[in-house]
Amino acid sequence: MKQAKADIGVYGLGTMGSALALNLADNGFRVAVTNREVEWIAPFLTEAGPLAESLLPASTLEEFVAALNAPRTILFMIPSGAPMDAMIDMVLPLLEDGDTIIDGGNADFNDTRRRFARLAGTGAHFVGMGVSGGEDGARHGPSMMVGGSDHSWQQLKPMAEAIAAKFEGSPCVAHLGPDGAGHFVKTVHNGIEYADMQMIAEVYGILRDGAGWEAPRIGALFEGWQAGKLSSYLIEVTAAALQTTDPDTGLPMVDVILDQAGQKGTGRWTVIEALKMGQSANAIEAAVGARGWSSEKAARELAQPILSAGTLEATVPVPEDLEAALLAARILAHAQGFRLLAAASDEFDWSLDLARISEIWRAGCIIRSALLDDFAQALRGEMPAGHLILSPVIAAMLADAIPALRRVVVAGVSLGVPLPALSASLAWYDTMRHARGTANVIQAQRDFFGAHGFERVDKQGKFHANWPDLA
Amino acid sequence: MKQAKADIGVYGLGTMGSALALNLADNGFRVAVTNREVEWIAPFLTEAGPLAESLLPASTLEEFVAALNAPRTILFMIPSGAPMDAMIDMVLPLLEDGDTIIDGGNADFNDTRRRFARLAGTGAHFVGMGVSGGEDGARHGPSMMVGGSDHSWQQLKPMAEAIAAKFEGSPCVAHLGPDGAGHFVKTVHNGIEYADMQMIAEVYGILRDGAGWEAPRIGALFEGWQAGKLSSYLIEVTAAALQTTDPDTGLPMVDVILDQAGQKGTGRWTVIEALKMGQSANAIEAAVGARGWSSEKAARELAQPILSAGTLEATVPVPEDLEAALLAARILAHAQGFRLLAAASDEFDWSLDLARISEIWRAGCIIRSALLDDFAQALRGEMPAGHLILSPVIAAMLADAIPALRRVVVAGVSLGVPLPALSASLAWYDTMRHARGTANVIQAQRDFFGAHGFERVDKQGKFHANWPDLA
Repeated sequence: MKQAKADIGVYGLGTMGSALALNLADNGFRVAVTNREVEWIAPFLTEAGPLAESLLPASTLEEFVAALNAPRTILFMIPSGAPMDAMIDMVLPLLEDGDTIIDGGNADFNDTRRRFARLAGTGAHFVGMGVSGGEDGARHGPSMMVGGSDHSWQQLKPMAEAIAAKFEGSPCVAHLGPDGAGHFVKTVHNGIEYADMQMIAEVYGILRDGAGWEAPRIGALFEGWQAGKLSSYLIEVTAAALQTTDPDTGLPMVDVILDQAGQKGTGRWTVIEALKMGQSANAIEAAVGARGWSSEKAARELAQPILSAGTLEATVPVPEDLEAALLAARILAHAQGFRLLAAASDEFDWSLDLARISEIWRAGCIIRSALLDDFAQALRGEMPAGHLILSPVIAAMLADAIPALRRVVVAGVSLGVPLPALSASLAWYDTMRHARGTANVIQAQRDFFGAHGFERVDKQGKFHANWPDLA
Repeated sequence: MKQAKADIGVYGLGTMGSALALNLADNGFRVAVTNREVEWIAPFLTEAGPLAESLLPASTLEEFVAALNAPRTILFMIPSGAPMDAMIDMVLPLLEDGDTIIDGGNADFNDTRRRFARLAGTGAHFVGMGVSGGEDGARHGPSMMVGGSDHSWQQLKPMAEAIAAKFEGSPCVAHLGPDGAGHFVKTVHNGIEYADMQMIAEVYGILRDGAGWEAPRIGALFEGWQAGKLSSYLIEVTAAALQTTDPDTGLPMVDVILDQAGQKGTGRWTVIEALKMGQSANAIEAAVGARGWSSEKAARELAQPILSAGTLEATVPVPEDLEAALLAARILAHAQGFRLLAAASDEFDWSLDLARISEIWRAGCIIRSALLDDFAQALRGEMPAGHLILSPVIAAMLADAIPALRRVVVAGVSLGVPLPALSASLAWYDTMRHARGTANVIQAQRDFFGAHGFERVDKQGKFHANWPDLA
């Protein structure tokens, strides 16, 4: 008897690809699987246990494509960049009208736009899908951000909704727009993730270096915050990590971990895309920058005895202030992310539904938090000038928390504890709070030395001043 | 009698092109001139007065090229981007072996690298030259940053050195490296310029909004700073601008100028290139960001009544503190710029001479200042880990000024006066000052949710922790 064909194919059995394939099988779909290194396939099937019945291994690309029901849905979980382009070259001749190939990696959305355009007119469809949640999320319910055609979404939807994380029953996956929309939203998700992680690390830093707290005590404090407005996966993870002991030394695990953080592309991309659109996501930039500086370990070791502290007297704020400060800063970082999504939506004509994005981030993804539900509601309501921070509910949350953020930044600045992301978020808040800023001086300078011209507050038009000659 | 040919051609008689052509003529060179709109040429010659004798007008590109001595040196002062590529298409067929064409605009150095590569092998040479100093600098002595072949530099050198600004007799022009080196250095110059302008505006802001000072009083204070370590063109310009009265209203000029600043590409490019190289120039990013936010005037007007101030009690620091704070922040912004130059030099194999760059910035350019002479000396001396802030002289200057920078940032944060660039520079300083940072927590988080692995402080290798399961 000829075996029934598969509902979907998963190419690439690394951490994320394996987990998604098993998740699909678990949800009753038949999944064709393959991998560039074919020797990965057998061990994967063994580990799959009873789920292997729903997995159809293929040892060549041709066999893999042939194992799929038409119109085909093929999910590629392979390294982004050149390998994806090479894969398209190989698979395209095997596809038929209506087939959809999906890049589920962390691709640069500019590449996704290019690939989407490349496939347009071939009859086949290209989808860029951001997948968040790590290995565990992929296996048991990720958040997924889909960019592509309606045709592709109709194919993918039943499977994606089945395997997605659920928030109060609602699947955390959505078709967000065409071409690069899904990967762009995933990029910004990761940018927010960078900021959130950095801000948590800054609060840890002020407790460790300013107040002399040991890691487990800080972890216990964070664990308590899970009961409040900061409730989130990243606080939960950090609280648990800080209370984990290294079996080798008996020391807190974080005390033996080198303070040198790696980064892939997405945080950086978020900041670069913001800049290209005339925006600044400075809290995210601070987080990206902090990772870069962390890698300069040797320079920092040389610098410590050379650079004067010049600190001022101050005390570390009470835990309630730290909690409120982190809440304010987290809101501001998210607001910068949503602002960037709005700008990209305009720029690329995506009609992004920001509230929907917030909704599908409420479960499954790394930045899932109680706040995202508040944001979703705020984003469906009144939002002056398209700024989340101007939504009444969010502005009220900020009003409660901003004095604490000021106290924490004052303490960090005084004690010499670096708080780049917390202070950046506050500087943005204070900038946006001033109807009259100081760029009038910038414009005066530019007109003075470069005759760039300026506008006036009291009449329309472009003007130059008759500046004095310098001595 | 056949007229003698020209030493150099200047194509493009806009503000900068005209000024450079007159500067060349003033220095005894014969200059062929032309312009896309040929009707600009006659008025330019009229305005040139007696210098017109050294100017050879041409009404077509062919005539212009034919008017030049071989090997030809042609300076294009036209809009960067597509117009430059179109110009290369047109002029290349007219060139002979050994001819040099120079792009003197604010080009993206990536384009310059591409164009340099395009001309390689054609026999003609491409130079990217950054020109700073505004119209007045171009006319009477700019600072020029040259990237190109040694052959081109030998052609250009006598003319460039003659027209350049002089610092104690030494011309402010240098051949900095091949291809995009000159335009990259100019880009970073502009990035530093953005930061310097923003930091001055922030100090103005704290005096205006925190202390209620009127513009002329702030201008007089800045004028006094010209006698000290802040002595610089930008302080001089700002002091004069703040003390200028608007003839229409009788108000200080800056009080009628709209607080909405424009920007071209260079500041943004600086930040983007830093990010691409894993660096963060966060003080420059803050300045770029502040310009972006300034353009959101309507949003800020809506925001002012909505966003709670939540300020804390504080007093505005004394003028001596503001002066020292600005000095510290200016040093830090420059140090970020030089750090970026060092990174690019490694990345593109340019062997940039950072001290020489500092020297040619001592006169002619917008960021010229007393500090640049100190930097030049520091950059020739001991500089641990390639960080200017670790040079003994610079570290000592910072040690004197850092407490004041802390007091100023504390005041701004407390009073709600946004100081994005000042606080960013301090956050960077404090980050680099800590041998042990907080990225250990970031690495714990990344390993917890993404199995990214980490290094340990006590042994070599890559490790994973056995993190607890979450509830």
